[in-house]
Amino acid sequence: MTITNHQFRLARRPEGAVQRSDFDYIGEALRALGDGEVQVKISHISLDPAMRGWMNASEDSYMPPVAIGGVMRAIALGQVTESQNPKFAVGDFVSGLLGVQEYAISDGHALNKVDPRLAPLPTFLGTLGMPGLTAYFGLLEVGQPKQGETVLVSAAAGAVGAVVGQIARIKGARVIGIAGGADKCRYLVEELGFDAAIDYKHDNVAAALKQHAPKGVDVYFDNVGGEILDAVLLNLAMQARVVICGAISQYNNQEVVRGPANYLQLLVKRASMRGLMVADYYPRAMEAIMAMGGWIKSGQLKTREDIVVGLESFPETFQKLFDGANNGKLVLQVAA
Amino acid sequence: MTITNHQFRLARRPEGAVQRSDFDYIGEALRALGDGEVQVKISHISLDPAMRGWMNASEDSYMPPVAIGGVMRAIALGQVTESQNPKFAVGDFVSGLLGVQEYAISDGHALNKVDPRLAPLPTFLGTLGMPGLTAYFGLLEVGQPKQGETVLVSAAAGAVGAVVGQIARIKGARVIGIAGGADKCRYLVEELGFDAAIDYKHDNVAAALKQHAPKGVDVYFDNVGGEILDAVLLNLAMQARVVICGAISQYNNQEVVRGPANYLQLLVKRASMRGLMVADYYPRAMEAIMAMGGWIKSGQLKTREDIVVGLESFPETFQKLFDGANNGKLVLQVAA
Repeated sequence: MTITNHQFRLARRPEGAVQRSDFDYIGEALRALGDGEVQVKISHISLDPAMRGWMNASEDSYMPPVAIGGVMRAIALGQVTESQNPKFAVGDFVSGLLGVQEYAISDGHALNKVDPRLAPLPTFLGTLGMPGLTAYFGLLEVGQPKQGETVLVSAAAGAVGAVVGQIARIKGARVIGIAGGADKCRYLVEELGFDAAIDYKHDNVAAALKQHAPKGVDVYFDNVGGEILDAVLLNLAMQARVVICGAISQYNNQEVVRGPANYLQLLVKRASMRGLMVADYYPRAMEAIMAMGGWIKSGQLKTREDIVVGLESFPETFQKLFDGANNGKLVLQVAA
Repeated sequence: MTITNHQFRLARRPEGAVQRSDFDYIGEALRALGDGEVQVKISHISLDPAMRGWMNASEDSYMPPVAIGGVMRAIALGQVTESQNPKFAVGDFVSGLLGVQEYAISDGHALNKVDPRLAPLPTFLGTLGMPGLTAYFGLLEVGQPKQGETVLVSAAAGAVGAVVGQIARIKGARVIGIAGGADKCRYLVEELGFDAAIDYKHDNVAAALKQHAPKGVDVYFDNVGGEILDAVLLNLAMQARVVICGAISQYNNQEVVRGPANYLQLLVKRASMRGLMVADYYPRAMEAIMAMGGWIKSGQLKTREDIVVGLESFPETFQKLFDGANNGKLVLQVAA
């Protein structure tokens, strides 16, 4: 029996926000496995801001661009349905860069087994997946917050930001989140235990920072770049650490990225700005998963996924990230 | 006998490049000393890019602005001509923030004695003064070059840059300098022993970097900001360190500072950008002066001062820094 594999292929490089016409949605017959290969039936696809960068032609990134005509790259999770690889058995749950499609064929490289008894599957794309590892190592290894310091995180209700803020609290820091809208801000303070939240759509961020962080920000975990980064740079404490994780405000730019005009505050405040690449920490993933798994179990770390059902909705669902319309880790569930 | 003290006072905040009309040049009678005070006859005034920042109204700097009507702030050096302070005797040579004037009255705070037998007086404003300490600690403590790494420095023929490059060579790094004009570039390579020099007025900096640093730049000591910083960010090695010392290309801006649009390369290259404030290292000044004094003596570290005679020329002489017209540390000698 031939299986038809539906998939999104990149038809052209998007200009600005992603549109449906930037992709071809096609169905093609799944080929037979070669030696060492595994067939995975994908159940959940992780939608992450970094994917927008992978659609661009730029070679100055940490991964090559997705080729025109290629399956759109994404981290995804599914179950092995056929295997010619002794390391993987039919029925195993696995995650990896499997793409925006119903089925993937993998040679087993960088394919990780997932234990569905530990947590619901989508959690392995969020807190126990790449976003959670990004938060854990970015905050603790790059930001290095000390007890009693003030930690600020942007996109704080997102997959990475919510984990950053909660871990910072667990480590004894004072935590402020920046998010868009009163609902998200209420969620941060009332449900996740943030000390304060700033609604960037409503508040003047620089003024709110002066109020909530009168002694300045010791660690800023930046997911957004742009105007907010500039406002924070004016409110750093001495010896502050700025963790550059991403710049979602800039990924859809058709012009040049807006650089942080206030970067000379690094000099005034003897501060540092350091880039974070989560892949560097993959060899230590288990350390983070054990720690975060424990905190989830003890109720100190809450996870939330925003699950949208239906592979076909990919272009519109992906855009939710940039409109700030998702609540928690955005996951595309392939089928109901 | 009353002494007339000629001085430059800030008349208004300059817009863009400094003009003579931004200052009042006046002579006033020197007042009598109070208890604990010292009178210094100034011989040499250090002209530094940071002074341009001190003329602005911004409160977001590491020093308060010079007040309108106040004597223009500058590091200077002179001889004690009268003393009511037991720590200083008539005839002592001293340096400190004495201002752009012929005489200063100091309470002795942050006034440092200088030994004229160790080096010519102007050297204490350059390599053995603030610029040299900036180079020494900025390179070694913030940049932390390792043997065999590639170190790049901008404004490389300037007071700080020339010392940065020479110390990097002493420490076994490969050294590239960026400077304006063929003469300065020749000086860097032929006289100071740089491995390569890039003439930013003539060469395409990004292309030249690809040629001279094919494996990328490990340490970038930035004195200029602007386009050059952006070009370097595209040519960093993995784990690179960017030392933010200044941004002379931006100090005369009337609009907002140009932020580094390519700052997300910090993420791609797992790199850091850290601000340097030399004042933090003043308690360790003797360590640097001993080391650099030794290298000067052994001929490994060459110093050069560009000495302009005549206090009255201050506004035009100061502007040489921004036109790149100085050769080495720019010093204003008060009188012939």
